[in-house]
This record gives sequence, structure tokens and C-alpha cells, in this order.
Amino acid sequence: MKRSLGAKTLALPTPVWIVATYDSKGKENGMTVAWGGICCSRPPCVCVAVREATYTYAAILERKAFTVNVPSAEQVKIADYFGIASGRDTDKFATAGLTATRAEHVDAPLIEEFALNLECRLIHTLEIGLHTLFVGEIIDVKAHESILDDNDRLSLEKLNPPSFCTGSATYYAVGPALGAAFSIGEQIKKREP
Amino acid sequence: MKRSLGAKTLALPTPVWIVATYDSKGKENGMTVAWGGICCSRPPCVCVAVREATYTYAAILERKAFTVNVPSAEQVKIADYFGIASGRDTDKFATAGLTATRAEHVDAPLIEEFALNLECRLIHTLEIGLHTLFVGEIIDVKAHESILDDNDRLSLEKLNPPSFCTGSATYYAVGPALGAAFSIGEQIKKREP
Repeated sequence: MKRSLGAKTLALPTPVWIVATYDSKGKENGMTVAWGGICCSRPPCVCVAVREATYTYAAILERKAFTVNVPSAEQVKIADYFGIASGRDTDKFATAGLTATRAEHVDAPLIEEFALNLECRLIHTLEIGLHTLFVGEIIDVKAHESILDDNDRLSLEKLNPPSFCTGSATYYAVGPALGAAFSIGEQIKKREP
Repeated sequence: MKRSLGAKTLALPTPVWIVATYDSKGKENGMTVAWGGICCSRPPCVCVAVREATYTYAAILERKAFTVNVPSAEQVKIADYFGIASGRDTDKFATAGLTATRAEHVDAPLIEEFALNLECRLIHTLEIGLHTLFVGEIIDVKAHESILDDNDRLSLEKLNPPSFCTGSATYYAVGPALGAAFSIGEQIKKREP
């Protein structure tokens, strides 16, 4: 039987990304977001939702840039830490032992130790409510060789990033492959009249 | 060593959701999206990116409503099918053997066989490029009891929805739990000077 759970942010799964920026003094900072996703194929864009109260908010607006840094399951504690500390009070990169490398194409830092980094230029700002949605055009993607498959394609399995369960507030690793997209549905398509 | 992969939609993971709508004749339809995510906590909102060329695009604009329906790993073939067929040519619900139930609060159908459904009212439309981003306020969430944990919280593990790897175009199941959010990062926070 189904139950009504009310008006809640219960879509699953959500990603666990660290959005990294430079502040007004050029100091690197990052915050963890689970609210966001890819939002356009051409130009390639990703959106992240950020509260105005965060230190990251002003930094994105000032620099018109941010990076999206994707941790592996082994880095989930770091990702959680970046979600519970504020760059106003502390140097999160130093505390977590991370290296900030200047992005090649945008005015924001990359997390060197994370195997996947997206360099984004802010192209839209949409105020929704508690959160503001920042749409970044993905100017370049940096990926460590270790997360590419034999065909040089980015592999979810090799990166093994955490997903976030908004209901139970728990992180999960990636499970087994279920099949090839744009392919396994053909079995059902054949039933069309 | 890291490589530059260019300007590509390579954020990971992405969800696999069926966005369901009624067309101008009141016929149910659905399409699979991997571009989207939660985008605001208050009001609770989810965004989905849809190309103007799709049958779903006009339906969302006309009804100012859609639902987000989250499959389980066992339903991944259905999800893939909804991404490779068009509601213009065929009745996807009938072909896949799914039941469309009218949502309680918005003018859109729910997929009865999917254990998690979000009823959304369109509140923002942002044209980005090839895709348009639709922001829906989540008016209600319907969840099957089987995907709630002992504390009545929605469980990613119990639902076990597929994630999509944009790099290798492969679906993956949910893996093992990695820890509690807003908690496991405390170990690092203690290191703050």
C-alpha cells in the first residue's frame, strides 16, 4: 500500500558533489550539495542549488564560476565534512588535507584529490525559495585515468561516487551494473503494436 | 594522471526518472530523464530537463504539472523503454503494462507500479539551450510501504533505483551504505584548529 509522505524533497537518488569557489580574497572554499543535476546537453550544463546564507553563494555570484568535484566512496567522510563546516570560520581544504588547484578555464579551484572535476561558468541564476539554482556551463571536465573504462569512457563503477538518500540521510556506494542504456528497453519496444 | 575530457555532461551519478504527463487529449504519457535533481528545500522542488522536441514538453506547459516516478532496479528495462519510444507514436503505458493513476493534487498521472511518485506543479521554466529546465514544486510524495525503513523514512536501499552513468551509458543499482550524513564528517571537523 502507498502512503502520502507530504510535500518533501524525496526524489532519489541524489548526487554528493563538492562545489568549489574562490572567495573575495582568492581563498578556496567548497560546500557539499545534494541538490543539483545535469540540466542541458547543448551547451552542456549542470545546476547546483545553494542557500543564500552559505559562504559559497556570494563567491559564485562574484566569480561567475564554480567547479563540481565528485568524490569516491572512500572520500565520503570528506564530502560529509564539507557539508557540515562553513568556509566563513575555517579552511576546509586544509582541515581535510585537500589540494586546491586553479581550474584551467574558469575562476575557481579544483579538488585535486577528487578524480572527477567539472569546470563551470555561471550562465543562469534562478531564485526559487530557500535555495537559488545556479546553472553552470560545463567548459571542461577533468578525469583521472583510473576512472575511465577500456573505451576511455567515464565509468560510474570505477569512480564509485556516493549517492545520498534524502529520506534516511545515508550515503550509499554504487552497486552492480544493470544493463546498457538505450538498449535494454528494446525488448519492451518490440511489443508495440 | 588526469585528462581533459572536454565540455561534456559528465557529472555522476544521475538519476533515472520517468516524468509523466497528460497530453492535450488527456492521454497519459511518460519519458525518462537523467537530467534533473532536487533544486530547493522550501518550497520543496525538483527540476527536470526536457527537450522541446519531446511529446512531454508541450504537455508540461499545457497542464502546468508533471509527476516524477522513480523505478526500482527490477524496472530498469521499463525505464529504458520510456527513454527510447515517443508518446507521439505509441501508448508507452500500455506497451509496458503500466497503470496510470490520476495524481491527487496535480493534473498528471502517477505510475502505480513504481513505488515512489512525486506530484509536481510547474512553477518555473528556464530555457537553457537544447534542454528547457522545468522546476516543479513537490506538492506531495507517494511511497509504497515496502520502501520505508523501520523509522518510516524513505530508504534508497529498499527502493534500489537505477543510477545512470553518462559516460558509459550504463545503469547501476544501489550499493552498500557508506555512513550517516551530517555525522561521519565530524571526525574531520575535530581536526579544525
